[in-house]
Amino acid sequence: MSRVVRTAAAQMGPISRDETRASAAERMVALLDQAARQGANLVVFPELALTSFFPRWFMPDQADVDAFFETEMPNAATETLFARARALGIAFSFGYAEMCQHDGKLHRYNTAILVDGAGQIVDRYRKVHLPGHPEHEPWRPFQHLEKRYFDPSPFGFHAVDTLGGKIGQAICNDRRWPETYRELALAGAEMVLIGYNTPRHYPPAPKHDHLQDFHNHLSLQAGAYANGMWVIGVAKAGIEEGCDLIGGSAIVAPTGEIVVQAQTLGDEIIVADCDLDRCAEIRANIFDFAKHRRPEAYTRIAAKDAPAKG
Amino acid sequence: MSRVVRTAAAQMGPISRDETRASAAERMVALLDQAARQGANLVVFPELALTSFFPRWFMPDQADVDAFFETEMPNAATETLFARARALGIAFSFGYAEMCQHDGKLHRYNTAILVDGAGQIVDRYRKVHLPGHPEHEPWRPFQHLEKRYFDPSPFGFHAVDTLGGKIGQAICNDRRWPETYRELALAGAEMVLIGYNTPRHYPPAPKHDHLQDFHNHLSLQAGAYANGMWVIGVAKAGIEEGCDLIGGSAIVAPTGEIVVQAQTLGDEIIVADCDLDRCAEIRANIFDFAKHRRPEAYTRIAAKDAPAKG
Repeated sequence: MSRVVRTAAAQMGPISRDETRASAAERMVALLDQAARQGANLVVFPELALTSFFPRWFMPDQADVDAFFETEMPNAATETLFARARALGIAFSFGYAEMCQHDGKLHRYNTAILVDGAGQIVDRYRKVHLPGHPEHEPWRPFQHLEKRYFDPSPFGFHAVDTLGGKIGQAICNDRRWPETYRELALAGAEMVLIGYNTPRHYPPAPKHDHLQDFHNHLSLQAGAYANGMWVIGVAKAGIEEGCDLIGGSAIVAPTGEIVVQAQTLGDEIIVADCDLDRCAEIRANIFDFAKHRRPEAYTRIAAKDAPAKG
Repeated sequence: MSRVVRTAAAQMGPISRDETRASAAERMVALLDQAARQGANLVVFPELALTSFFPRWFMPDQADVDAFFETEMPNAATETLFARARALGIAFSFGYAEMCQHDGKLHRYNTAILVDGAGQIVDRYRKVHLPGHPEHEPWRPFQHLEKRYFDPSPFGFHAVDTLGGKIGQAICNDRRWPETYRELALAGAEMVLIGYNTPRHYPPAPKHDHLQDFHNHLSLQAGAYANGMWVIGVAKAGIEEGCDLIGGSAIVAPTGEIVVQAQTLGDEIIVADCDLDRCAEIRANIFDFAKHRRPEAYTRIAAKDAPAKG
């Protein structure tokens, strides 16, 4: 039985602060329709796909922050998206800011959900690696307050059975950490969906700004190769509220090769046939985990105590 | 105080089965002299630098295998190399097959040593990730019997204080595993020395043969970037006993950029000024381990039980 998932990475251009969720969702429906015309079974949207990337603003009033969060999903703004995908029988994933209750507490997560072709939410991933800083740093041209506005996920990485295979999710900064891909692969993932919002300018080390695209692809490709899995990287791109976000959305094969890549910094669909059986080319050979991993040599990685600073 | 290590990667061309250790060491002395003329403080030679890559042959008689191993270091064949380096005040590293006793048993390791400018062996690393297979597989055009001829190291990864910084070592297949670089970085390494012998032809998945150079650089570059450290990759290259070994020796900056790369498949020196202070550009920012790592989400990685097969 074929395990080819015809996958669309649905890159999105900028979303301004005053664009409504309904408007963003309408753009997503248009991209979904384009992908459907190309025969896609799965459409992957970026991180925080419904709003502007709000951690760039310091907002002293928590109510202003909370206005960017969703308390239920689907909700009024995304109903049409869910309905259209279900009608087309297409699975999709997207990121949003999620406010929810558990363990008797209110939590705010940077979340991505995966919805199957029947319209069921089959996976909900909360971002593990929150980059940036917790306090207002006025010297920066823009903030990166993910550590202030979101809780880090206590749920770790996981993969779910859907689309004839095992699919995992990660979000933005997660993709730079090799542990992300390895944890997902050890959970069985054959494909990982990763949305991102990545400013070209990195205020603490601006001399690396010209390397942002290189580092993006290097991370996606290395993660795919070292784990023999498909990696779908999807940007929110372009000039968003004066902040220059990289594009470079890419579908990466288990060999680490980019098989298709976005050509614009706007709303754009790229599509590839992702054969999940190709994972075995790598994972039954050079990265046969059962034969070749040496977990007894990896003890520092999972040790809880703060590591010595390099 | 400057912490620039002027580093030479000393790529070596093929070593035939009947070439003596003394001859190989003579070639290494010639490369050392070339590096000295370019002002190098450190010269990095490949894995198994003294002999042909013998795991390509199935040898039923253990005495034939043992003939490739060294029982002491330095020894008669390498005395001149040690003496010349000491006279020049140059540190160097190289790999060899090591037979030694510990815990009341005889062990055979795929080993690399690091010798400081005063001629002292300051680090001895034994390969953790042994690729290949333990039994003779006659269907292969050549064998890869590292799992038969070597013990996997029980000593893990480590970094030593020398050359004004912290230096670590890894060997060949180790470089494909992100855990290698992370363990070394968590041990404090600012530079990692990695020799390799990599056949272009991979018998279990020949359709990836054309990707060998890509996978080599992808692994070295991703390891450097995700840990903010210098990576020195050094090949034994060229057609060795009918086996086509890739070259591509490279010095990779903590940004993941290749700053210099070999142009031949033979004995060749490439040199770069490696400023260990540049590690902080990455490791004090995007990969600030103390701020951003999430070890509680990395538990599968170090778990001892065999992982589920992907």
